[in-house]
Formats: sequence, structure tokens, C-alpha cells
Amino acid sequence: MVGFVTTSANDASTTPAAIMTPVEYGVGARFTLSIYDSDYVRIILGALAECDATGLTVTTNDISTFVTGSEQRVVNYISDVIAVAAASGAHLSAAILLSRGCPGELACALPQGVYALAAAPIALDATGVRARAHWSLYPLLDGASGSGSAHAVPTEHMGPIYAAIEEAKRSGIFSGSDHFATRLDGDLAQVLQTAANAWIGVGAVVQHVVTHLTVSINSPSPIRD
Amino acid sequence: MVGFVTTSANDASTTPAAIMTPVEYGVGARFTLSIYDSDYVRIILGALAECDATGLTVTTNDISTFVTGSEQRVVNYISDVIAVAAASGAHLSAAILLSRGCPGELACALPQGVYALAAAPIALDATGVRARAHWSLYPLLDGASGSGSAHAVPTEHMGPIYAAIEEAKRSGIFSGSDHFATRLDGDLAQVLQTAANAWIGVGAVVQHVVTHLTVSINSPSPIRD
Repeated sequence: MVGFVTTSANDASTTPAAIMTPVEYGVGARFTLSIYDSDYVRIILGALAECDATGLTVTTNDISTFVTGSEQRVVNYISDVIAVAAASGAHLSAAILLSRGCPGELACALPQGVYALAAAPIALDATGVRARAHWSLYPLLDGASGSGSAHAVPTEHMGPIYAAIEEAKRSGIFSGSDHFATRLDGDLAQVLQTAANAWIGVGAVVQHVVTHLTVSINSPSPIRD
Repeated sequence: MVGFVTTSANDASTTPAAIMTPVEYGVGARFTLSIYDSDYVRIILGALAECDATGLTVTTNDISTFVTGSEQRVVNYISDVIAVAAASGAHLSAAILLSRGCPGELACALPQGVYALAAAPIALDATGVRARAHWSLYPLLDGASGSGSAHAVPTEHMGPIYAAIEEAKRSGIFSGSDHFATRLDGDLAQVLQTAANAWIGVGAVVQHVVTHLTVSINSPSPIRD
């Protein structure tokens, strides 16, 4: 699995990532939508069926749903599915993983140190659904930067991370930090867009970047109770 | 937040991690327990109240529960809470993050390159609860190995990862790999123990290591439907 960050050299080492498609580069997501309601089957299957998956490969199994395609389409789809489920009024949480730079299964199908595949920032329409989230962003040790030596990487990726935090503060959705995670609070689309654009930004200088979000919607709990 | 992997040098740079406590080293977890049942409040609060939190600091807010303490106690507590909730018979999922080597909030309170804090493997009693999980393990780019140069790190941490995969296969809980995650399937305690011991093992050579699991229990879905 790609989560294990195992890499093996192959012919792709001669292929600049700039000419790869997002799917070839391993751009995708895995998410688990949890509905705190006894009617969860109808709500989850309804949301998955209702949303436009054009341009995407979507596979749901017993644990989570895998989505691959362009950054814009992948995150837009996840936002749509969660928003439709949230319209049920049920309390829900979504565990979301976005990954780039390490396609494959048990071993990464790309070698270390391919050129990082840049992508344009995404933009999502507001959903009208308020979401609170814990967010973490992980530049991974297995991939090396395409634009410098391995030594340069640890500082290089901080620029996009600081920029993302500043952007989250400017847009008003930064909501503090808890241990191991940053809190975001705002429209679901803005929460996902902020996390995705930081992931894309760091992904321009680090090959393998993963971001995780736990999103909570319609919670009866007061904030930080 | 620590998820952002920002580091800032401070006096701890002169403190070998070997004399830090697990809490000082940032050993802890954040988990979200999602109950697919309209009676979720009673089930979640009951599980959190029923389990022994001796030796731990446990804080629950509107998104997730934070736990810090020794590796053994942290993971034992999470196993207990999930097992009690599972005894309700409700379908549930748990999004779990284990982190080590990066305490603090927005910035890591440790500098890069402190000695990695080794820990003994944990051992949990079987719960009798079958769990299926997606598991990912992340050695992070911000921390450097205590036992070699930054250049040496990318290969060093693979030994414990391969050992963990072999152990999961030997114990019969390795259940294949999906994109971005390894599947585990077995007793909840064994699933958590496998993930935690890989996290601990990699943590002996890499400062900042995070592992994420999405655990599914009592699911009505057939495996890999």
C-alpha cells in the first residue's frame, strides 16, 4: 500500500512527472463517511449515487471509498458527497486522506526523486454546510524534491505550509491548533479547499505528500467542549 | 499543530530523547469514534466513561479525543474504548492517529534531529471483536534520524516497515493492500498492536512518525464489496 512508503525504481525514473497524468502520479483520495444515524445505509448510498463522478474513478469497499482523477475533480466530488449527506441533518464525520506522488499498492510505482508534479490550486463553490475539522499535512521522507538535493527538502516545503496557514487565517477558517492537528472551521468547501491547496503547494516541491482531515458536521457538541 | 510538521529549535536540542518521558516526546493519539446508530451519544460517552484511563491524559472535544501517555497505555485505552462501543452491536468506524517525536501545537516543541526515543513493543489482550482496517504509516520529512545523516534516513526506516508487514502476514491479519493503505483484518487488539509496533519500530530510527488507521467494526457490508 502506498501508505507504507515503499519505493522501487522502474522505468518511470526517466519520465519527468510533468508529463504524467494526475492518475499516473497517484493523485487521489480515500474517505470514510460515517453517519451517526440508524438510517446510515440510505444516506451514504444516496449521497454516493447522487453526485457527479465525471472524470473520476470511484470505488467503494467495506472500509472506505477510493477516488482518483484531477485534484479539482477529486476534492469537488468529496465535498459534494459530504454536503448531500449533511443535508439529511444527521450528525456525521468524514475521515479523508489525500495522496500524491506515490501510486501503486504495496510498493510505490514511482522511484524516489521523480520531478514533483505541480498542479493548479483548486476552487470549490460554497456548500452552505458548516464543517469543523482536524487537519494534518505530511511531507514524506521517502520522496525527494525534484528541485533540489535531499538536504534542501526539509526547509523547502515549509514555504507552502506557512502560506497555507496564513491563507487559512486570512479567510477566517483557521480555528486554532490541537495536539497533532490544526482546527479549521467554516464552509465545508472552504475547509477542503484550504487543505487541498496546501497539499498541492507542498506537492510542488516534495514528491510524496499526504494530508488527512477528520471533518465533523451537524455535531450536537459545543465547540471544544 | 503538530500535523504541520513545523519545527523550531529550543533548549530541548541539548536533551537526548532517551531521558524524555513519552509525554515530553509527544507520544499520543487522537481518535474519532463514529457510531452509525441514532443512540450514538449514549454509546460513545458510555465507552469513554467505562474504560480505565490510569496513567493517561484524555481530552475529548467536538471533533476527536486526545490521549497521551505511554505507548502501551495509549493504545490499550483506545482498544478498550472501541471494544466497549462495539459490544453495543452498532456498526462503527474509528479514525485513529498515533504520533511520536513532535509534541506541541502549531510548532513542534522539539528541534529536528533529536535522538529518536525508542520504546518497547506493546502487547494487548484479545478483545473478541473483529476489526477490518485501512492502515498507513508515515515517517516524516521534518525529523532526522538520531543514528545517521539525513541521507541515510530514507533507507534506514524501511527495515522496521518490512518487518511489520512480515509480522502482519505471519499473524494472519495482513489482508492485502488498497490504494494508499494496507488492509488488516483480525481481532481489534491485534490490528492496533500491529500498527502501533510498526510505528514504534520506525520511531526508533526516525524522530517524527505518524500512523493512521480507519477501523470498521460490525459492518453490514461484505468484505471488499
